Amino acid sequence: MNINEIIKAKRDQKELTTEQINFFIHEYSLGNIPDYQASSLLMAIYLNGMSEQEILDLTVAMVKSGEVVDLSDIPGIKVDKHSTGGIGDKVTMVVMPLVASCGVPVAKMSGRGLGYTQGTIDKLDSIPGFRTNLDMDEFIRNVKRIGISIMGQSENIAIADKKLYALRDVTGTVESIPLIASSIMSKKIASGADKILLEVTYGSGAFMENEIRARRLAQTMVNIGNMVGKETIAVLTNMNQPLGRFVGNSLETKEAIDTLAGRGEKDVVNVCLLLGAYMLKLAGHGESITTNMKLLQSKIDSGEGLAKFKEFVSRQWGESRVVDESELLVKAKYKLPVNSIVNGYVSEIETKNIGQAVVNLGGGRLKKEDEVDYYVGVEVMKKIGDKVSMGEPIMYIYANDETKGLMQVETLRSSFKFSNEPVEKSKEILDIID
Amino acid sequence: MNINEIIKAKRDQKELTTEQINFFIHEYSLGNIPDYQASSLLMAIYLNGMSEQEILDLTVAMVKSGEVVDLSDIPGIKVDKHSTGGIGDKVTMVVMPLVASCGVPVAKMSGRGLGYTQGTIDKLDSIPGFRTNLDMDEFIRNVKRIGISIMGQSENIAIADKKLYALRDVTGTVESIPLIASSIMSKKIASGADKILLEVTYGSGAFMENEIRARRLAQTMVNIGNMVGKETIAVLTNMNQPLGRFVGNSLETKEAIDTLAGRGEKDVVNVCLLLGAYMLKLAGHGESITTNMKLLQSKIDSGEGLAKFKEFVSRQWGESRVVDESELLVKAKYKLPVNSIVNGYVSEIETKNIGQAVVNLGGGRLKKEDEVDYYVGVEVMKKIGDKVSMGEPIMYIYANDETKGLMQVETLRSSFKFSNEPVEKSKEILDIID
Repeated sequence: MNINEIIKAKRDQKELTTEQINFFIHEYSLGNIPDYQASSLLMAIYLNGMSEQEILDLTVAMVKSGEVVDLSDIPGIKVDKHSTGGIGDKVTMVVMPLVASCGVPVAKMSGRGLGYTQGTIDKLDSIPGFRTNLDMDEFIRNVKRIGISIMGQSENIAIADKKLYALRDVTGTVESIPLIASSIMSKKIASGADKILLEVTYGSGAFMENEIRARRLAQTMVNIGNMVGKETIAVLTNMNQPLGRFVGNSLETKEAIDTLAGRGEKDVVNVCLLLGAYMLKLAGHGESITTNMKLLQSKIDSGEGLAKFKEFVSRQWGESRVVDESELLVKAKYKLPVNSIVNGYVSEIETKNIGQAVVNLGGGRLKKEDEVDYYVGVEVMKKIGDKVSMGEPIMYIYANDETKGLMQVETLRSSFKFSNEPVEKSKEILDIID
Repeated sequence: MNINEIIKAKRDQKELTTEQINFFIHEYSLGNIPDYQASSLLMAIYLNGMSEQEILDLTVAMVKSGEVVDLSDIPGIKVDKHSTGGIGDKVTMVVMPLVASCGVPVAKMSGRGLGYTQGTIDKLDSIPGFRTNLDMDEFIRNVKRIGISIMGQSENIAIADKKLYALRDVTGTVESIPLIASSIMSKKIASGADKILLEVTYGSGAFMENEIRARRLAQTMVNIGNMVGKETIAVLTNMNQPLGRFVGNSLETKEAIDTLAGRGEKDVVNVCLLLGAYMLKLAGHGESITTNMKLLQSKIDSGEGLAKFKEFVSRQWGESRVVDESELLVKAKYKLPVNSIVNGYVSEIETKNIGQAVVNLGGGRLKKEDEVDYYVGVEVMKKIGDKVSMGEPIMYIYANDETKGLMQVETLRSSFKFSNEPVEKSKEILDIID
C-alpha cells in the first residue's frame, strides 16, 4: 500500500477502504508519511467528502493511534458530554455537578480553549488553587469518592488526531464535517465513556455558522457513536448570541456558580436542564426528559447541585470560598461600559466578535503556548429582541489593561445590529438528534 | 498576505489575485512556505481548477522565480519546440537540424527523461563523446556559428517550478491542466525563445490519455504563450502507438539519423515535416505550410538535414561517424523476439507498457539520480491495422541483461490487442491549435 495511491483515490472521488485509512493513520502517527502528503489528502477529503463508512474507519483508526482510557473501575454508566464550542457556554460547569448530584458518575476529560472560544479547563483554572492536571488514578479515585472529577485531556489519546488537527489548522482543512466529526468522536471514544451527549452549536458565535451544517455534523457524530456501540445523542443549540450574561473564564465560572445557586439566566438554565436531562436518560435514569428536567431543577432549588460543585472544587484543591461568594471571581481592574448610540431593538449579534474581544483582552489563546488572563471578559446586558435606548450600556468590558479595554469598545459596539421594529427573542434549543 | 487565506480562497472556488499567486510562488521558492501548505493548495487547484488569468499569473510568477535566458545575441527569430512526451518520439532530433538547414536558428534547451518517456538529452548522450552540458556562452556561440545547439536545461530557470514539480510528484497533483500548462510554459518562456511550437501528445503512450484533455492542455498553453507575447502553436499528435519503429535512447537516435537520411518510417516523417513546417512559419519563413513541408522534404532528399546533424554532433564533441553508420548505435548484447501467439489485425497497443519495458531494461529513470543504459530498447515491428500471423515477431527487445530482457516478453506481448476483422490504420496528426 502506498500513500500516493490513497491520495489519488480520494482525489478521484473513490471511497477509501478500511485498510487504506488504517495505513494512512498508522503510518502518519509513526512519522512515516510526511505532512505534505497528509495535507494533500486532507484537502482532497475536504473537497470530495467521505462516506459514513470512511468517517467511521477514520475515527476508529484515530482512536487506535493512542491510548484508550479505561473507566471500568467506576461503577455505573459513564456519560460524557461534549460541546462544539460557543461564546459564553458555561454549560459543562453547571450540568456536571447537577448530574453528579443525581447519582450518575461524571468522569470528564476536557480540552483547553483555542481561538475565540474558551475551554472548560481554563474556566475552572480561574478558581484559585484549582488543579485539572490530575493523574488518571486521582481522577478515577475522585469520581469513585464524590461522583465527579474533571481533568485535562490526556496527551496520549488519539495521537493521530492531535497531529492531524495541528496540520489542518495551517492548511485550510479545518471546516470539514468528516474531519471535525472524526476528530471529536475519536477523542470522546478514547476517553472511555459508555455513552456520549453532544452539544452542537450553530450560529454567529459557533464553529458551524449555519443550521444545515450543524445538523449534518450532529448526525454524522451520532452515527459514529452508535456504530461503535456508544449510544450518542446530540442537542442543537443556538449560538447566534452569547449564552447567558458573561463571556470570559472567571466570569463564566462565576455565572455557572450563580446558575447552580438558582440565580441563573433563563437561557443558561434551559440549556443546562435539557442537556442534563438527556445525560440522565443516557445513564438510564428517569422516565422522561420532563421528569429528568424537574429532578435537575430540584437539585438547583435544594442547593445539592451547588454543594456538589463546592465539594468538587475542594477535592481538586480549589478555594471553595468562591462558591459561596462568586463575586470573588470578578477581579479585573477596569469595568468599561459599551453604550448604545441608537434607540431600537437588538436584531442581530456578531457573537464571534465578542469571543475575539475576550481574546484581545488577553483572555484566550492564539497559540497553544499563550498565557491566559483568566479575569478579563465581557458582560452582555442586552440580547436579541431587547429594547435599547441611546446611552444605555449594552455590554461591559472587564479589562486589566485600560488601553486594551478601550480598544475593544468600537468593535463590540458594532457587533450589535438594531431594528426599529420589535424583534422576536431567539430560542436556545433547536432540535434533538438521536 | 498569508498563505492560509490563499489556500482557503482556492478551496472555496475563489479566483486568486495576481498578488496572491506572486506571494505564494515567491515565498515558496524562498522556503518561507512549507511543503505541507503548498501541497494543500496544489490539491485545491487540482480539484477546483484555475481561470485563464490565474494560470497566466502562475506561469509568469514561476518564470520570475529563476533566471530568464537571454538569446538576443543570436540574430533572427528563435523558435523553441516542446513535446509533452511520448513513446518513440524522436521528432526533436529530426526537426531541429532540418529547420536549421533552412537558415532558422535553433537554440534548444531540453530536459532529461523521467518515468516511462525518455528525453532528447538522454537520446543524444547515447552518441559516444556527445556533450550536452554546455555553458551558455558555448551554446550561443554554437548557434551563431552553425545555426544549431542543444543543451541540458539550466538548473537556474523557473526554480519554483522545479520545487513544485517534485512536490506534485508525491502528492497526487501531477495531472492537472493548469499545473502542467504553467509548468511547461514557465520553462519555455524562461528559456528565452521568441516563439513556441508545442507537440501535445495524447493516447495510451502519452501523459494525456484522451483527446479532450490534450486539446484543453494545448489550448491553455497556446493562450499563455500568446498572452505573454510569444506566439505559440500546438500540434496534437496521436500516441496510441509508438511513433516510428524504435523505443530507447540510442535506438531512437539511430532512427532519427535514418529519417534524416531518407530512410524514415512514414509516421515519423509526417510528424517531422508538419512540426518543422510550423516552426518555419513561426520564424516567418515560407508562404504556406505545404510549401514549408516541401522545403523540409527537399532538405532530407539533398542530404542537407543530415549534414547539419553531423556538423551539430561534431561541434558538441560527439563521434560523427555514427551519423554515417547509424548501425553503430545498435549495441545491446541481446535481441530477443516477441512473437505473436495469435493471427489477426493489431487493434490496440498499450503504448505506455513499451515505455515501461524500456525503463525496466535499464533505459530510463525512476528517480532523477538513476543511471541510464542508453543501448537497451524495443523495436516495434507491427502497428495498429497491421496483419499479424501466429509466430511472427511483433517486437524485438534489445537488452544487455538476458534475464531482464526475457522478463519483458510477456508484458510486451500482452500490450498488443488483436481483432479478427481488418482495423483502420491510425493518423499521426490530429489537429493544429493556434
